[in-house]
Amino acid sequence: MNNYYTQDVHGPYEIIDIGRLELEEGGVLENCRLAVATHGALNEARDNAVLVPTWYSGTSKIMEQVYIGPGRALNPNRYFIIVVNQIGNGLSISPSNAPDAIAGPLFPKVRIGDDVRAQHRLLTERFGIKRLALVVGGSMGAQQTYEWAVRYPEMVERAAPIAGTACNTEHDFLFTETLIEAITTDPGFSDGAYAASAEVAAGLKRHAKMWTVMGWSTEFFRAGRHRVLGFADMKTFVDEFMTGYFGPMDPNNLLCMAWKWQRGDVSRHTQGRLPDALGRIKAKTFVMPISHDMFFPPTDCLAEQQLIEHSEFRPLHSIDGHLGLFGTDANMMAELDSHLKELLALPSAI
Amino acid sequence: MNNYYTQDVHGPYEIIDIGRLELEEGGVLENCRLAVATHGALNEARDNAVLVPTWYSGTSKIMEQVYIGPGRALNPNRYFIIVVNQIGNGLSISPSNAPDAIAGPLFPKVRIGDDVRAQHRLLTERFGIKRLALVVGGSMGAQQTYEWAVRYPEMVERAAPIAGTACNTEHDFLFTETLIEAITTDPGFSDGAYAASAEVAAGLKRHAKMWTVMGWSTEFFRAGRHRVLGFADMKTFVDEFMTGYFGPMDPNNLLCMAWKWQRGDVSRHTQGRLPDALGRIKAKTFVMPISHDMFFPPTDCLAEQQLIEHSEFRPLHSIDGHLGLFGTDANMMAELDSHLKELLALPSAI
Repeated sequence: MNNYYTQDVHGPYEIIDIGRLELEEGGVLENCRLAVATHGALNEARDNAVLVPTWYSGTSKIMEQVYIGPGRALNPNRYFIIVVNQIGNGLSISPSNAPDAIAGPLFPKVRIGDDVRAQHRLLTERFGIKRLALVVGGSMGAQQTYEWAVRYPEMVERAAPIAGTACNTEHDFLFTETLIEAITTDPGFSDGAYAASAEVAAGLKRHAKMWTVMGWSTEFFRAGRHRVLGFADMKTFVDEFMTGYFGPMDPNNLLCMAWKWQRGDVSRHTQGRLPDALGRIKAKTFVMPISHDMFFPPTDCLAEQQLIEHSEFRPLHSIDGHLGLFGTDANMMAELDSHLKELLALPSAI
Repeated sequence: MNNYYTQDVHGPYEIIDIGRLELEEGGVLENCRLAVATHGALNEARDNAVLVPTWYSGTSKIMEQVYIGPGRALNPNRYFIIVVNQIGNGLSISPSNAPDAIAGPLFPKVRIGDDVRAQHRLLTERFGIKRLALVVGGSMGAQQTYEWAVRYPEMVERAAPIAGTACNTEHDFLFTETLIEAITTDPGFSDGAYAASAEVAAGLKRHAKMWTVMGWSTEFFRAGRHRVLGFADMKTFVDEFMTGYFGPMDPNNLLCMAWKWQRGDVSRHTQGRLPDALGRIKAKTFVMPISHDMFFPPTDCLAEQQLIEHSEFRPLHSIDGHLGLFGTDANMMAELDSHLKELLALPSAI
């Protein structure tokens, strides 16, 4: 048992079993348990629901801490905010907590579309929600946001994909492959049959180093932002912050998410034609890359935004790069909130 | 014996023994053999010498093919161009060709300053050169260029550091660490005691993947430049071009250069004070980062340029990123030549 994935660390959340989920790649989750954290209440008109999916390695907790609160755009006094942990993240059904028959390396391959179908069932059947005022997420949360807007266009009134793409790039696919290999080449990984994350500590540390290189930005380090965050030098930043963050996680969980991340692609709905897929979107959409993001640079996101009818390009500005998603740059978070408030004030087009 | 490091592949070059070289880290090269390729002839005034040091993994051959020729800025009809292969690159003395006592993993640690002192001895004692019209190099060649201009300010009339820094950044140090670990974690590496590069093929391939991610740019792949270069997809590009390039190289050679690269820092001359070190430079200097370089982005280079008295910031523009150094973008090469010609036309300030 991995002590990291607990209510103590990530709660409160509720485990909701949505039943049998057949997966796009052919596997099955007989009891698809989703970890769900909600904030606020659904109003009588049932028109104030906001869905927040999670990113690679993230859980509902960081979304709560960094994005949700009174006075924020995601204000629980106004909206019913549902944060659904992605499959494989250790709280929802994952390699680390699945029944023996699909535990660890036996866990089936999951796609972004599987998460979104699971979330759709949760929202419609469990909560009786027919429309979402907003879907908003960062990174893999942006992938799920795009998937929602393309798959269920009549249900998503507004969409805010942050620091992520609708169709993952070849470049990002390869970077993710290097992350995967950092873990799988650790002899302690033993093809996924390790007894505890600690046996894969060296691989997880290498994975953390690669995240450090690409996750922030060159300017972040040149400006000494890691020191501002309280770490004496790069080594301490890597050892304490980055390895401290990833080290306790379950390697098979990370690999489940990484595989899914690599293959995020809404054009699967339209035989590979991305303009057709993005052309389905009816949501008012603010595309929000982060200026110094080395995974999903603004130019990649701009190309997609231009294919979405009711959309605007709203880049966020921070030298913190992709991991500005952690909320390390207060100015960027204010910028984000401002955009989200503006988006939420727009009339629905559906 | 590694068949990659031969006159057939990289020649013609001459091996010149400059004698005993005591290294900054305490080791010694009893017979420091430098592989040297020259183009053109030294004139009577001995004022037309141009020094070209090499980058990580590069040899004199690529400098000849991509940078030197009639009509080019580095015109052998006008200049005496001396390309000196860096220590550790497999042609000059290196782990792969050193005497048994310092062969392979026993090879001593070498610094940029060692290369530059070795080159200085070569130029002054062997060629009788007292002044250099220009020192120009890319990446680790830029590190050596800066080292030359700081260490021997009275001898360097002009300097053109391309896509590199005078003081390596923490960010780049960490990236290089991930490159190193890609190789050293391969079980076939055996702490450097492998019998042939092929035993480290998996590590060298991971190293090639990381170079692919950071060496080009996200825009390079988005624009399909890898396909323009003749590779059907990312996998083919990685397998054939990038792994094809790095795969035959000797892992200990790469590690020797990587260690050196990480620690390039002219402020070693001035107790860590970079402004003082760069303040020593008397050369007319054109600082030429590449616009989309993910290792040495223009902002990092601009900060250094502003500390150099007779300098100009002349960024090159290419979505090919750092590996635009390979000459893959004809427009960027034309831009580079134009800057170099302009620099060479400036009067010397010393």
